[in-house]
Amino acid sequence: MTPYAIAIHGGAGTILRSAMTPEKETAYRKALEDSILAGESILKKGGHSLDAVEAAIRTMEDNPLFNAGKGAVFTHDGKHEMDASLMNGKNLTAGAVAGVSNIKNPVSLARAVMDKSEHVFLACQGAMEFAKKNHIEFAPDEYFYVQMRYEQWQEALKSDTVILDHTSRTPNPSPSGEGNKFGTVGAVALDVNGNLAAGTSTGGMTNKKHGRIGDTPVIGAGTYANNATCAVSCTGHGEFFIRSVVAYDVSCLMEYKGLSLKEACQKVVMDKLVKIGGEGGLIALDAKGNIELSYNSEGMYRASKVQDNNLYIGIYKD
Amino acid sequence: MTPYAIAIHGGAGTILRSAMTPEKETAYRKALEDSILAGESILKKGGHSLDAVEAAIRTMEDNPLFNAGKGAVFTHDGKHEMDASLMNGKNLTAGAVAGVSNIKNPVSLARAVMDKSEHVFLACQGAMEFAKKNHIEFAPDEYFYVQMRYEQWQEALKSDTVILDHTSRTPNPSPSGEGNKFGTVGAVALDVNGNLAAGTSTGGMTNKKHGRIGDTPVIGAGTYANNATCAVSCTGHGEFFIRSVVAYDVSCLMEYKGLSLKEACQKVVMDKLVKIGGEGGLIALDAKGNIELSYNSEGMYRASKVQDNNLYIGIYKD
Repeated sequence: MTPYAIAIHGGAGTILRSAMTPEKETAYRKALEDSILAGESILKKGGHSLDAVEAAIRTMEDNPLFNAGKGAVFTHDGKHEMDASLMNGKNLTAGAVAGVSNIKNPVSLARAVMDKSEHVFLACQGAMEFAKKNHIEFAPDEYFYVQMRYEQWQEALKSDTVILDHTSRTPNPSPSGEGNKFGTVGAVALDVNGNLAAGTSTGGMTNKKHGRIGDTPVIGAGTYANNATCAVSCTGHGEFFIRSVVAYDVSCLMEYKGLSLKEACQKVVMDKLVKIGGEGGLIALDAKGNIELSYNSEGMYRASKVQDNNLYIGIYKD
Repeated sequence: MTPYAIAIHGGAGTILRSAMTPEKETAYRKALEDSILAGESILKKGGHSLDAVEAAIRTMEDNPLFNAGKGAVFTHDGKHEMDASLMNGKNLTAGAVAGVSNIKNPVSLARAVMDKSEHVFLACQGAMEFAKKNHIEFAPDEYFYVQMRYEQWQEALKSDTVILDHTSRTPNPSPSGEGNKFGTVGAVALDVNGNLAAGTSTGGMTNKKHGRIGDTPVIGAGTYANNATCAVSCTGHGEFFIRSVVAYDVSCLMEYKGLSLKEACQKVVMDKLVKIGGEGGLIALDAKGNIELSYNSEGMYRASKVQDNNLYIGIYKD
C-alpha cells in the first residue's frame, strides 16, 4: 500500500490579493478544503482514485464560486454549456463530454460515458440524450442562475467581448472584480493501490459563441492519467493548451525524456506555454505521491493533501 | 528549398483483395491519385503545405467512396454528423470541428476556425452558425445521400449495432461487402519552405448515437503537426486513438526519445496500439520528407508522392 495523495485546482488567472476581501478568501479556502475532504474520505477508506477525483470535482461543481456545474458562466445566448473529462491511469480508459446543458454534475456524466458506453467522447444534444438514458441528474436553468455570472455576461455582451476564463485579458473587469479569475476545476489523485486518476470540469468562457470547446474535455490536452507516469488536470487559456497537448506532454517528458514530475511541469508551464503566450496552470501527481501545482498566471486556486501530511491551500503566488 | 512531399489515407480496416472487384479497385486508385494531384498542384507552385492538405482532403470529401463529406455514413437518426481538423506545423495553430451536418467540406470549416476565429475547436450547432457567418458551403441532405451508405445504416439498425469505421467487428458484413472498410480520410504535407501540415476528416461510425466524437477532430489524437518533428493523420478505432494520444505520441517519441519517424510510427501503431486492441493506422511525414504509412489492420487506402519520385498507391498489405 502506498500513501494516498490528492490535489485540486479551482482555476488560474489574475487572482490578486489586493482585489480579495477576507470574506471571499475565507469562502474560497473553505470550498477548496471541502473538495479535498470529499476526495480524501474515499482515499482514506482504500477507495479508487477515480472515485476520489469525481467526488472532489462534484463538490466544486456544486459551489457557485467556481466556473463549473452550478457556477458555470453564461454563453453568448444566455445558456450554460459545460465540458468535463476523466481518465483512469490504471487502464487508460477515459470519458469526456462537451457542450452539455442542464447537467448538474458534468464530471459524473463523463464518468458514465467511461463506464457505460463504448465511447470516450460525446457532445452536445447526443451527450444529453445519453445522460437521460443513464439517469444522470439534470437541473433546471434556474439552478445555474448565479447573479454574479449574469452580471459578467451582461458586461461582456455590452463590450462584445469574450471573457476567457482565467486570463487577464478582460478589457473591463466586472464590477464584482471577479471577471479575471474564474476557471475550470480539476482534481488528480493517487490511491493506496498505486492507481492514478485525473479529471477536469468547466463552464467555459463567459459570452462564448459557436459551441467553442476548450481543453477541458480533450484527453491529452486538459486531462491525462497513466500509472506509469502521472495524472494531470489543466486550467487556462484552452486554445493554447489544446495546441500544446499539455497534459500528455508532461507525461511524455517523464516517460521518454526521464524528467521528474517537477521538471516536466516546469518545462511545460513555465517555458513551453509561456513562449506561445498560453496563460494558466496545472496540477500533477506521480505514482510516488509527488505533487506539482504549476502556473504562469498571477494565481491559481489550489489545494493538496498527502496521507499523513497537513492540508495545503494556496491562492496567490507563494 | 526542400523537395516537397505529400501522403494521404482514405481509411484503414479489413480491406481484402478477395472482396475487391477490379472496377472498385480502379475507382479507389483513381480517387487516391486525384487527391494526391490536388495537393501536389499546390506544392509544385511553392504553395503552403496547409493548403495542399486542405485540397487533398477536399477531393476525398467530394468522393462518395470515402467516409467523409459526401460519402459520410448515416448516424442512428439518419443524419450525417462529421468531424474534421487541421494543424499547421510552422506555428502550431490548429482548427477543428465536431458534429457538424450539411457542411460540404468539413476540412474547410476547420480551416476557417483556424484562420478566422480566436478558437481551435467548435462543435455542433454553434460550429454550423460559425460556418454560416463565414460563408462556408452548405449542401442539402440529398447531397449526402449515397445508396450504399443507406444500406449500411439500415443493416446496422436491424442488428442494433454500431459499425465502427475501419474495423472488422461488423457482425454481418453489409451486402455491398464494404461494411468493414470505411473510414476517415487524411493528408500530411511538406512544402518547399520546410513547413509541415496535417489534416483529417470523417463521417464517423455508421449508426452512431449520442453525438459520439472520435479522434479525428482531437488535436494530438487524430491530427498533429510540428515542423520540429512530424505531421501525422490517423484513421482507426477512434476511442483507442484518443486514449493513446496517438498523433502527438509519434511526435514525442521523436522529440524526446530521439526515435526516427519510422521507429516512432512502428512503436505506436504496431506495439502500443496493438497491446490495447486499437485497430487502425496513420500516415506521417517528417521535415526531411521521410514518409511512413503504418497500419495494424488488413489494409489501408493510402498514397504518397515525393517531389521527383513516382506516385505510390497502396490498398492491401504490401
